[in-house]
Amino acid sequence: MTTTESTGVTVLGLGAMGSALASALLDAGHATTVWNRTPARAADLAARGAAAPSDIAEAVTAHPLVIACLLDHASVHQSLDAVIGTMRGGTLVNLTTTTPNEARELAAWAAEHGVDYLDGAIMATPPMIGTTEASILYSGPREVFDGVRPVLDRWGTSTYDGADPGLASLFDLALLSGMYTMFAGFLHGAAMAGSAGMTATEFAARATPFLSAMTAGFAHDAAVVDGGDYTVPGQQSLDFSDLSHIVRASEEQGVAPGPVAAVQELISGQIAQGYGAEGFARIYESLRADAEVAR
Amino acid sequence: MTTTESTGVTVLGLGAMGSALASALLDAGHATTVWNRTPARAADLAARGAAAPSDIAEAVTAHPLVIACLLDHASVHQSLDAVIGTMRGGTLVNLTTTTPNEARELAAWAAEHGVDYLDGAIMATPPMIGTTEASILYSGPREVFDGVRPVLDRWGTSTYDGADPGLASLFDLALLSGMYTMFAGFLHGAAMAGSAGMTATEFAARATPFLSAMTAGFAHDAAVVDGGDYTVPGQQSLDFSDLSHIVRASEEQGVAPGPVAAVQELISGQIAQGYGAEGFARIYESLRADAEVAR
Ligand SMILES: NC(=O)c1ccc[n+]([C@@H]2O[C@H](COP(=O)([O-])OP(=O)(O)OC[C@H]3O[C@@H](n4cnc5c(N)ncnc54)[C@H](OP(=O)(O)O)[C@@H]3O)[C@@H](O)[C@H]2O)c1
Ligand SMILES: NC(=O)c1ccc[n+]([C@@H]2O[C@H](COP(=O)([O-])OP(=O)(O)OC[C@H]3O[C@@H](n4cnc5c(N)ncnc54)[C@H](OP(=O)(O)O)[C@@H]3O)[C@@H](O)[C@H]2O)c1
Repeated sequence: MTTTESTGVTVLGLGAMGSALASALLDAGHATTVWNRTPARAADLAARGAAAPSDIAEAVTAHPLVIACLLDHASVHQSLDAVIGTMRGGTLVNLTTTTPNEARELAAWAAEHGVDYLDGAIMATPPMIGTTEASILYSGPREVFDGVRPVLDRWGTSTYDGADPGLASLFDLALLSGMYTMFAGFLHGAAMAGSAGMTATEFAARATPFLSAMTAGFAHDAAVVDGGDYTVPGQQSLDFSDLSHIVRASEEQGVAPGPVAAVQELISGQIAQGYGAEGFARIYESLRADAEVAR
Repeated sequence: MTTTESTGVTVLGLGAMGSALASALLDAGHATTVWNRTPARAADLAARGAAAPSDIAEAVTAHPLVIACLLDHASVHQSLDAVIGTMRGGTLVNLTTTTPNEARELAAWAAEHGVDYLDGAIMATPPMIGTTEASILYSGPREVFDGVRPVLDRWGTSTYDGADPGLASLFDLALLSGMYTMFAGFLHGAAMAGSAGMTATEFAARATPFLSAMTAGFAHDAAVVDGGDYTVPGQQSLDFSDLSHIVRASEEQGVAPGPVAAVQELISGQIAQGYGAEGFARIYESLRADAEVAR
């Protein structure tokens, strides 16, 4: 299908995020139909002009473009299995968080029913929706993305990640993995500093500029990983990066070393394989897909 | 002791960092004496005017202010045990990386010999020494820090962290714990994206601005930790932060989930204790010193 600036859209799921998506469509003047398992949550949007049938069968046939923003993979099947047969020829854009394999499964299931499928991963909080700050990643057939893009762009900055429907989820989870791990590292550092009476707020005042500046080093490690040669000059060696003393200091202060101990395990694993003189980025080899024992 | 802009200084240890420290002192016009276990490493500095005795006993008595920048805690004792008795009344500033407890041990040992002791932690690489970019943390008696500060400031930005000699090391290791954990999170994300063919460089181009921006969230989590109430509004819940799907997606892509699995362990531990509806920052309670089982 090809959408325009005024295409009608159905939104399934009116939690914090689904409500923000539907609200941005109403703001932009789209004819909008909404549905939620618990109908009461549709009241505000209905008051602003959205059609709000309590029957999902009515909602999914109101427009050929249906957006799902439910809880998880299971809730998509629970809501749509009974009605997907009526959506033939239409398009389903699923913004529910799933794993890459779950997105691939949903794409195959939609295809079986003659429904075009685009998977999306929202890298934003509900208040950001409707601003360019909201980044949403998409994957699936390029022509499906291009066709519905005028609608997608209502929510924020749309990025197309490729034909494999699992890619948007994969890149989203990869970035979130980095983010949550960084926050855990921050909180571990705060606990170490806290063991000597520094407040977490004082520690954050030091850690925020320091870690923010250090993200500039990702590109350097990435170039080493892509080059595949962990002996090129200018790298900090694994021996030098050994974090045993941090793990020990953490334990001596009574702070559980959890996150940093997991990093040290990767470092000591590479050192044990004889790579201590090579660069820190080599821990990538302990993580990567198809890692061989002594790679 | 009280130093001035022209005080004489002895530097022990001429590795990459010790050489940079001595070089900055020569640049600033200080009478500088250097010593290294392997004497050949002193040649360049001697050519620039440093005194370079091969006998450490001569080096430590040349000036009442002695800087140590050796490999580790053990190497400080190995170098100085035989000569500390000749340093009575002087000051030892130890910039060798140690744990907090090792710094405390060295402070007590110096005190036994009538030597003032200041511990330092260098948060910089050798090329940064001599610029304000180089941050060096110090701990020990305030008057010792104040007395030698004109010399310390030659190297970069000096920060005084408190009287407990272990504090500089503790705060340094706390920040490094955050940094290494963040890099491991980045490399894990790169491995996930890499499993679908994205280069690490492409992933870094996304991860660098994203994680850099997210460091702004540390202050929010810190305020929650300091407040001690993980139920205040505006937090992302532990249930919402559950990373099981990231761990599962990582495994499905053949990527070892190491760092993010360690974070998920903290999250699921708090959820298992019944705190799923409280904020993510609550994982601090699983890390902190004196954590109680059900805190
Ligand atoms: N909020 C964010 O910051 C954010 C950011 C990025 C991505 N996301 C993703 O967006 C999706 C929605 O998030 P949200 O914040 O809107 O969550 P939410 O506020 O918890 O809302 C969940 C929604 O899913 C519905 N639901 C749950 N189980 C269902 C089932 N079995 N059948 C039908 N409907 C079901 C709920 O309906 P009821 O009202 O009937 O319970 C509700 O509409 C999630 O996948 C989330 O990961 C959210
Ligand atoms: N380089 C950095 O980016 C950096 C950053 C922050 C902190 N630091 C800290 O600064 C200190 C020095 O680092 P570096 O980069 O200069 O290391 P380095 O280049 O490896 O040099 C190590 C120095 O320690 C000496 N040494 C080792 N074992 C010894 C022993 N048993 N007795 C006497 N001397 C001994 C070496 O003497 P020989 O020449 O005789 O081997 C050499 O002078 C370390 O604690 C390090 O953690 C370094």
